Amino acid sequence: MRLRELAEALGAELVRGDAGAEVLGVAGLDDVGVGQVTYVDDQRRLAAAEATAALAVIAPADCLPRIKPLLRVPNPRLAFARALAMFAPTDRLPAGVHPTAVIGEGVVMGEGAAIGAQAVVREGARLGARVQVHPLAMVGKGVSIGDDTTIYSHVTLYDGVKLGSRVVVHGGSVIGSAGFGYVEEEGPDGQVRVVHIPHIGTVVIEDDVEIGAGVTIDRGTTGATVIGQGSKLDNLVHIGHNVKMGRNCLLAGQVGISGSVTIGDGVALAGQAGAADHLTIGKGAKAGARAAITRDVPDGAVVLGTPARPIREQLRIEAALGKLPELVRKVRELTDRLAALEAQSKEKGR
Amino acid sequence: MRLRELAEALGAELVRGDAGAEVLGVAGLDDVGVGQVTYVDDQRRLAAAEATAALAVIAPADCLPRIKPLLRVPNPRLAFARALAMFAPTDRLPAGVHPTAVIGEGVVMGEGAAIGAQAVVREGARLGARVQVHPLAMVGKGVSIGDDTTIYSHVTLYDGVKLGSRVVVHGGSVIGSAGFGYVEEEGPDGQVRVVHIPHIGTVVIEDDVEIGAGVTIDRGTTGATVIGQGSKLDNLVHIGHNVKMGRNCLLAGQVGISGSVTIGDGVALAGQAGAADHLTIGKGAKAGARAAITRDVPDGAVVLGTPARPIREQLRIEAALGKLPELVRKVRELTDRLAALEAQSKEKGR
Amino acid sequence: MRLRELAEALGAELVRGDAGAEVLGVAGLDDVGVGQVTYVDDQRRLAAAEATAALAVIAPADCLPRIKPLLRVPNPRLAFARALAMFAPTDRLPAGVHPTAVIGEGVVMGEGAAIGAQAVVREGARLGARVQVHPLAMVGKGVSIGDDTTIYSHVTLYDGVKLGSRVVVHGGSVIGSAGFGYVEEEGPDGQVRVVHIPHIGTVVIEDDVEIGAGVTIDRGTTGATVIGQGSKLDNLVHIGHNVKMGRNCLLAGQVGISGSVTIGDGVALAGQAGAADHLTIGKGAKAGARAAITRDVPDGAVVLGTPARPIREQLRIEAALGKLPELVRKVRELTDRLAALEAQSKEKGR
Repeated sequence: MRLRELAEALGAELVRGDAGAEVLGVAGLDDVGVGQVTYVDDQRRLAAAEATAALAVIAPADCLPRIKPLLRVPNPRLAFARALAMFAPTDRLPAGVHPTAVIGEGVVMGEGAAIGAQAVVREGARLGARVQVHPLAMVGKGVSIGDDTTIYSHVTLYDGVKLGSRVVVHGGSVIGSAGFGYVEEEGPDGQVRVVHIPHIGTVVIEDDVEIGAGVTIDRGTTGATVIGQGSKLDNLVHIGHNVKMGRNCLLAGQVGISGSVTIGDGVALAGQAGAADHLTIGKGAKAGARAAITRDVPDGAVVLGTPARPIREQLRIEAALGKLPELVRKVRELTDRLAALEAQSKEKGR
Repeated sequence: MRLRELAEALGAELVRGDAGAEVLGVAGLDDVGVGQVTYVDDQRRLAAAEATAALAVIAPADCLPRIKPLLRVPNPRLAFARALAMFAPTDRLPAGVHPTAVIGEGVVMGEGAAIGAQAVVREGARLGARVQVHPLAMVGKGVSIGDDTTIYSHVTLYDGVKLGSRVVVHGGSVIGSAGFGYVEEEGPDGQVRVVHIPHIGTVVIEDDVEIGAGVTIDRGTTGATVIGQGSKLDNLVHIGHNVKMGRNCLLAGQVGISGSVTIGDGVALAGQAGAADHLTIGKGAKAGARAAITRDVPDGAVVLGTPARPIREQLRIEAALGKLPELVRKVRELTDRLAALEAQSKEKGR
Repeated sequence: MRLRELAEALGAELVRGDAGAEVLGVAGLDDVGVGQVTYVDDQRRLAAAEATAALAVIAPADCLPRIKPLLRVPNPRLAFARALAMFAPTDRLPAGVHPTAVIGEGVVMGEGAAIGAQAVVREGARLGARVQVHPLAMVGKGVSIGDDTTIYSHVTLYDGVKLGSRVVVHGGSVIGSAGFGYVEEEGPDGQVRVVHIPHIGTVVIEDDVEIGAGVTIDRGTTGATVIGQGSKLDNLVHIGHNVKMGRNCLLAGQVGISGSVTIGDGVALAGQAGAADHLTIGKGAKAGARAAITRDVPDGAVVLGTPARPIREQLRIEAALGKLPELVRKVRELTDRLAALEAQSKEKGR
């Protein structure tokens, strides 16, 4: 690919460049080598980019070149993502069923769908066009998967779960296991034992959802656990039964959501955050890393802390915490000084 | 099934009902449809249940019907769990060994046991009656599994671990991996390197234990890591080597227990809680969500916070934290006012 | 094995022992039985060890025997680890490829390498000598694995990742999944959608790294995510894309490291700790359990808390927190007393 072609593909304005130079790849600022294109978000970073071996730099429209050719675009990070896609090696499987895969009765596969080595697709599952089921993945009975969805190795899809189109599920994730719901029963001997509540609901993963590695999503007790269209879940996220998640939510690594939580559209939860059961997290709300959500969060609110509070309040608390040990000393000193004044005053009052 | 039959099966008193009406299913209040039975825990919720399309409502014995037929029972949630079980679709595998499964020498299988497609059961493993090993599960050498236990897909049981009867292990869980134990060794060159301590112990999962998806339980260094009878572990829980857990414990999602912790019977740990190594958590103790247990917890205690403290103390601290920034200001103000008084007093003293 | 032989193998001084006694095994203090050898770290614990059924006790050089034979060594824990290794049952697979494994074109295997039942090793993967790929493991295209490395069941190695020699990866871990990187795009309809940034980098696991069960390590956006030589990761650890970890780091269970964090040599992070993206954690730094690292950590620093602070500061804060509710009351009381004094002073001033 020539620089000119890349510029055209990205809708970029090529400034100061040899349009015929060959582009060997795309790389971040720390990794970029000879013949590769990198990107910067602002003029400030341009000097660093120009100090690398990069062939050219994707940069904002108002960026001024000094040494290297620039590919000026309105949104450099988006253009970088697109350029990466052009150079990404494919991990697509050849269409069709690998001879070692086990396919149950009545499985329906769309055009171009692929099932890898040792994968298991059980009775009645329906795979859309160009679906990729990687080696050693497990697709349960009656599972439904939309077009262009990719299931990586060692993913377990329990019976009956539904995945939309263009969904990605990374290695080792488990979708549709029974929820954590129990009820105590006193036996005739007076002994209490804990009885599991059967989970006969399902999981619905809407279109364009991307799920990281090692994620677990429980099925509904009855009804569905829902991951809304376009939402993205990072690795090792846990989603309890009957959670209803809206569209375009972002959940970072190791977030945990308890059962029956309702999450509005566009919610962003940073790493290791958690939410207690039956809460509502309003549209567009954000939680900082490690936030422990113990109450409903209003639309658009930003919370932080354990328990989570409005972020400004929490940041004030955290700042004040640094002063707390001194505060304890100060109050002790004030108490002494006040007692002295009081004694003095009493003395004089006599 | 007729309403009359469901009432009989649940030991319920049918009030106001058409005993011959057909029951099409069971569902929670949010999901219930025509012909289905739902449940409420108290009279207060009954109005909501009666506003649904439900055919009938499982309700406490003292509940008064207004519109819908009631199935009155002493414990509605328990009856609901039982009713769900009656309508749950089975995910049982047909008895026998799938032709693509790989079975090592000397494997013993009880009556009605089933091994699914692509599963591996290695040499000398012993499976009780009606055990279910789902497709793509891995059962190591010499593993012993009691009657009626279910191992879901992508579970790894390392060599020699022991599971009791009626145990459930959900997808992707790993039982018996080596513990995280290291010792430093100084080489002849003065370089320190970290040497792994071999873990030659095992894991014992007692009867009626249920383990969620993505759980990891390490084997003992020597001796066993033990999960006591009837205990339930939610998804992504981590149990370190040589943990000894009692009976009927409940560990919610993402809880982490370090090595050699002793946990008494009936302990409940809420989501994302953790415990440092070698601690003892007493019988019936409870820890709130995200509690970080850094000291022994007495029997029956309830703890919360990081580090975990008795819950009342922690809740008082959390309430006071909200006032902390103001407290800092107040102390500053008091200091000024006191200084003013002192100056005044000194002035007068002259 | 005779006691004499064990002493020789460990380079231990045998004191008070019957050199010809047969050693039946090795076990920790809580598990030790007849004929087995246990260990203590100091004289103080020796009485407990001598109260067991142990045949002999590995003990420090300055330990004085009273009842049992001692095996005196400079580092008892290290000697114990070595003794355990002598008695550890092997879980090594027989060399060669199991007939049910699926091996892609151009796979290269070193001498003595083994691939277990139902495992998948895809095109162009290179396995060093004595590599163990356990049953149901998945090795992606072009993956490179050094000598004596062990991949347990249900591990997923994505295409192109590189593992060094003597690496261990436990069950269910996922190495090389796409990182959690997104960019927003405004469509022609004004709708914002979230676009995944392709991750075309890789993961490099250096020699002697050990990775627990259920760990997830994302590949670099470009360039590599690196786990440095000799580092050890416990179960359910999450490592984001482009993390650069140094040598001999120890990460305990459920630690989470966000993207592009740089971690120096010899860093130790206790359970459930986390680090925000793009930070630097200096050489030899330590973080206590549950620490939330939100800023760079200097070399050798020890941090604790959420957000993480220098440990002494954090411990002072935690101690002071216990007094916070009382502090609130005290300040209220001081305010009243001061107001009274002020009123009195004003009164007198008239």
